[in-house]
Amino acid sequence: MKPLVGIIMGSDSDLDIMRGAADVLKQFSVPFELTVVSAHRTPARLVQYAQTARERGLRVIIAGAGGAAHLPGMTASMTTLPVIGVPIKSSNSIDGWDSVLSILQMPNGVPVATVALNGSKNAGLLAAQILGATDDELAAKFELFKHEMREAVQEKIDALKD
Amino acid sequence: MKPLVGIIMGSDSDLDIMRGAADVLKQFSVPFELTVVSAHRTPARLVQYAQTARERGLRVIIAGAGGAAHLPGMTASMTTLPVIGVPIKSSNSIDGWDSVLSILQMPNGVPVATVALNGSKNAGLLAAQILGATDDELAAKFELFKHEMREAVQEKIDALKD
Amino acid sequence: MKPLVGIIMGSDSDLDIMRGAADVLKQFSVPFELTVVSAHRTPARLVQYAQTARERGLRVIIAGAGGAAHLPGMTASMTTLPVIGVPIKSSNSIDGWDSVLSILQMPNGVPVATVALNGSKNAGLLAAQILGATDDELAAKFELFKHEMREAVQEKIDALKD
Amino acid sequence: MKPLVGIIMGSDSDLDIMRGAADVLKQFSVPFELTVVSAHRTPARLVQYAQTARERGLRVIIAGAGGAAHLPGMTASMTTLPVIGVPIKSSNSIDGWDSVLSILQMPNGVPVATVALNGSKNAGLLAAQILGATDDELAAKFELFKHEMREAVQEKIDALKD
Amino acid sequence: MKPLVGIIMGSDSDLDIMRGAADVLKQFSVPFELTVVSAHRTPARLVQYAQTARERGLRVIIAGAGGAAHLPGMTASMTTLPVIGVPIKSSNSIDGWDSVLSILQMPNGVPVATVALNGSKNAGLLAAQILGATDDELAAKFELFKHEMREAVQEKIDALKD
Amino acid sequence: MKPLVGIIMGSDSDLDIMRGAADVLKQFSVPFELTVVSAHRTPARLVQYAQTARERGLRVIIAGAGGAAHLPGMTASMTTLPVIGVPIKSSNSIDGWDSVLSILQMPNGVPVATVALNGSKNAGLLAAQILGATDDELAAKFELFKHEMREAVQEKIDALKD
Amino acid sequence: MKPLVGIIMGSDSDLDIMRGAADVLKQFSVPFELTVVSAHRTPARLVQYAQTARERGLRVIIAGAGGAAHLPGMTASMTTLPVIGVPIKSSNSIDGWDSVLSILQMPNGVPVATVALNGSKNAGLLAAQILGATDDELAAKFELFKHEMREAVQEKIDALKD
Amino acid sequence: MKPLVGIIMGSDSDLDIMRGAADVLKQFSVPFELTVVSAHRTPARLVQYAQTARERGLRVIIAGAGGAAHLPGMTASMTTLPVIGVPIKSSNSIDGWDSVLSILQMPNGVPVATVALNGSKNAGLLAAQILGATDDELAAKFELFKHEMREAVQEKIDALKD
Repeated sequence: MKPLVGIIMGSDSDLDIMRGAADVLKQFSVPFELTVVSAHRTPARLVQYAQTARERGLRVIIAGAGGAAHLPGMTASMTTLPVIGVPIKSSNSIDGWDSVLSILQMPNGVPVATVALNGSKNAGLLAAQILGATDDELAAKFELFKHEMREAVQEKIDALKD
Repeated sequence: MKPLVGIIMGSDSDLDIMRGAADVLKQFSVPFELTVVSAHRTPARLVQYAQTARERGLRVIIAGAGGAAHLPGMTASMTTLPVIGVPIKSSNSIDGWDSVLSILQMPNGVPVATVALNGSKNAGLLAAQILGATDDELAAKFELFKHEMREAVQEKIDALKD
Repeated sequence: MKPLVGIIMGSDSDLDIMRGAADVLKQFSVPFELTVVSAHRTPARLVQYAQTARERGLRVIIAGAGGAAHLPGMTASMTTLPVIGVPIKSSNSIDGWDSVLSILQMPNGVPVATVALNGSKNAGLLAAQILGATDDELAAKFELFKHEMREAVQEKIDALKD
Repeated sequence: MKPLVGIIMGSDSDLDIMRGAADVLKQFSVPFELTVVSAHRTPARLVQYAQTARERGLRVIIAGAGGAAHLPGMTASMTTLPVIGVPIKSSNSIDGWDSVLSILQMPNGVPVATVALNGSKNAGLLAAQILGATDDELAAKFELFKHEMREAVQEKIDALKD
Repeated sequence: MKPLVGIIMGSDSDLDIMRGAADVLKQFSVPFELTVVSAHRTPARLVQYAQTARERGLRVIIAGAGGAAHLPGMTASMTTLPVIGVPIKSSNSIDGWDSVLSILQMPNGVPVATVALNGSKNAGLLAAQILGATDDELAAKFELFKHEMREAVQEKIDALKD
Repeated sequence: MKPLVGIIMGSDSDLDIMRGAADVLKQFSVPFELTVVSAHRTPARLVQYAQTARERGLRVIIAGAGGAAHLPGMTASMTTLPVIGVPIKSSNSIDGWDSVLSILQMPNGVPVATVALNGSKNAGLLAAQILGATDDELAAKFELFKHEMREAVQEKIDALKD
Repeated sequence: MKPLVGIIMGSDSDLDIMRGAADVLKQFSVPFELTVVSAHRTPARLVQYAQTARERGLRVIIAGAGGAAHLPGMTASMTTLPVIGVPIKSSNSIDGWDSVLSILQMPNGVPVATVALNGSKNAGLLAAQILGATDDELAAKFELFKHEMREAVQEKIDALKD
Repeated sequence: MKPLVGIIMGSDSDLDIMRGAADVLKQFSVPFELTVVSAHRTPARLVQYAQTARERGLRVIIAGAGGAAHLPGMTASMTTLPVIGVPIKSSNSIDGWDSVLSILQMPNGVPVATVALNGSKNAGLLAAQILGATDDELAAKFELFKHEMREAVQEKIDALKD
């Protein structure tokens, strides 16, 4: 199946975190692709990836990066697709603040849908919600996911009682 | 036309900022509704708003709030729709940090698509992009919007030369 | 005995921290209940818990949460009881700042009595002080507790001398 | 009537902020006293105030201070009454961070119920809630207050519709 | 004369700040060009500007931007020239922290020579120093500039004495 | 010999850090005393210690504390002696910021000479410098100490060459 | 009279703040000198000032600076006198944090007695306390100063009662 | 060969980090020297090093330091050469913020080209770029370096596909 979501990250050292987004999309049976695109080391690849994303069938892009994290914002500058940014607390980051601020604080005209620091699972869920906004089947799966979260909490509540 | 986007805010004092989202949606001819829902002062209204949002036809919710900003995250907890959060530097905020962190740092399972501090225009644009992910006409409008941004920059470049 | 204090937390991973409040209340012989209520994963449970708290006999609620911590503030929005908030430095928190700010910076009208990061022991003590404001027996116990703290410091002073 | 709540502040320059607590207590008909106690300039007065507070009939103390704000914590060290701390963004404060942290981050054994920066109104409300924990009449007034907040929001919602 | 230094900025609203770099270069008789290049609104222009900078004769690039400031880092990713980054406290910035961190915290392999917040004068001076590293005449001018700074301080010292 | 410097700390858990001050004073043959004085758990002891410090012969007080660190400032409020504050990154501190700000940001009228986070060695040195301001023998020892520091650096420089 | 305290500042724009130290010393009849020494623009003057300070009769140095504030620390590196650092929130400072951290966080071996941001009055008082450590007349004046502070607070307390 | 780049650091404990700059310069065959110069413990050596740097043939200075990091800025105050500052997260640093701010926030007139926290590799690369601004052979090596970075990313991309 053709991927609907593109998961990209600035470095393969971000893979441990970004796999969280992939896992969620598998769980929701949303086809995706996952690769490395470095804004700073492979800028031409970034341009090519972002500019062709929509025509290749992608509907949402998830971009994770750490430190001075330019990948999500630069991707957003070159596509009309919604871009979800995942700030990563990488080894070169000052407690994550640089990653968060350089993804979140985009200027007017070029939004990035930022999730929590290292929040790649939520990035996957948000991608599912975005696709589910106009896809009732996916929305139903999300409803079920919410139900399962509630159940999981309930089990812990019951365990606490014992 | 039935609204596709719901714009809510924690207080009418947030209106000056949040109008930015409404203006963008008007520009893109995306029907929307705009109202006040206070997580802390009208929690029952929040529950009702969030739980009925999808069935009332909304596809995206934009929620703006300041200080300990719980409106976006609590809305997200009660709907399967994507929720865009706008941190607002309200008068009771510590330079905006509280607004940003209490919207951005959502736990796994309940994402909020956070935009920049006071970034309501970008919230409107992101809503348009989310709808445009599966709506080619809207995507084309977004492409045009990007073109116009480039033109506007070019005019300023030309003005600088003179 | 009917619980006078309700201790709730957003996740069972907060239990290690929140047990501190329970231990203190046991020490003061204040009856309490302890459970998990997730603002984001079990919002209906949160509404039910908060709205029935007073009629079920609770006099104080202690709520602990990490990251974008909405549990204390949302609980406070739905009860007239005093709510004590414990910011928790959970694994998804940015050094605790998000937890602190999203609990502390409540808007006018809905206070949360916030204690230090991970300060669940102090939350238990504050609950005892609140009940002790109008309960002389409990106040006397608190006076004794203060006396014992002084003694404990004195022992360390004496040990240092040796 | 004998005051039940003591409102103290580190400097008369804090009066503009701290009046908010007094106004709330008047509204709830809770008798209070209001004065200046400087931890740093009048330490003997601080000791005397804190140590005699309970025997003078006070049930709650509200203490506001800015910068290196030691008044709330030192008061708490010398009374068994619950102490509510109001961090004030005074002229000598670094954006309020010093006030917040030096009130909030109390060590185990001596809690201060901290409210938002400049949140004196919430301090007043919290004092009313603490007294109302065991006073049904006051709790009923608080319920009414919450009702009025909801009404006020509703009026703004209606105004927005026009 | 062919420009040796390229001064670029993300928006014409940055011009007031960035003129400081131009003024310094005029003072040192270093030929320069100044224009707007928006990383987010004109990404193609950014690619073109950065990739042709060296062949067009530039020796140093000064790039100023605010908020999620990607211009300096992305320029650096596409040229071998040294790039000086000027973080700007623009209207959409959180006290300048986002600008500073998104310029400074570049990953290994792609440095940006970052100067102080709004430090465009120092950016101009640094460009002069970089060119002066291998240009004795320029170095002599810089020595003179340092001498004049000392003199200016001395005048103020003398004025203080009177 | 009668102690000239009093080293106090809020908790015996601060001893590992505060021993640094004692070691320095030993090295300079400055007689000192070292004990625990908790502002929050033993406020009466604090009053007694601070008020009698000068008459007991102390010339300088070094006070270390963590979190909401009130010991240095409250000591300063009750003595005319210079008080050196050592912010400690204790286990209950938010990365040291609370300790630093609650010691440094004292209001006009009551200074605390604050040193770096965990900087107890420098507190000891500063005490020696204060006494040395009017004691030429001690000043000569300090000059020697500076000489030895230079030598130690030189040895490392030489080692690097090999 | 020969000055005992040297007040220096990095720029004459710091004069408005630093006059506070001079005013205090006048009040205590402590002879002082006041001048500009720029660590960055007049480094040779800094070396000369610091190295000759003690032999010229100074007993304490007060150094104020903003931004990357190196004046206090560098002065301390070249004298055995105690150096008091005043972080200044100058126009080029990021809310004062740079000034505070670059003065406070000195390495082991070279302490700077740091006071609050813009706290020049406290710097003057601390200088008086340092001199007063071994000067009973000055200590008596300081005791009187403390008494007057208490009186001033009492007057405000009385005014509040009316 | 005579060194073109001087690498200095405040302490030999910074050596592990600063070796990164040396490694890069070796890779680019740029001759360099590396030593310890402590601004605070060996100020005379600092003056001597900085003032003679240009005449000894250096073209760029790389200075690394942690905490209240005065070495880069003070070096810059005494040479006309471009100075690259490397903030180091040393053991006495508050999460690196002090190092970053005390190097970055230099006043007008004395720039320091600041790189990321612990970014010594980028300091080495920036030195190579500065020399390469007027040295085509070095620029060609830098182009090759950029090519190799791209290749390295491509290999990781390929590895991910398998």
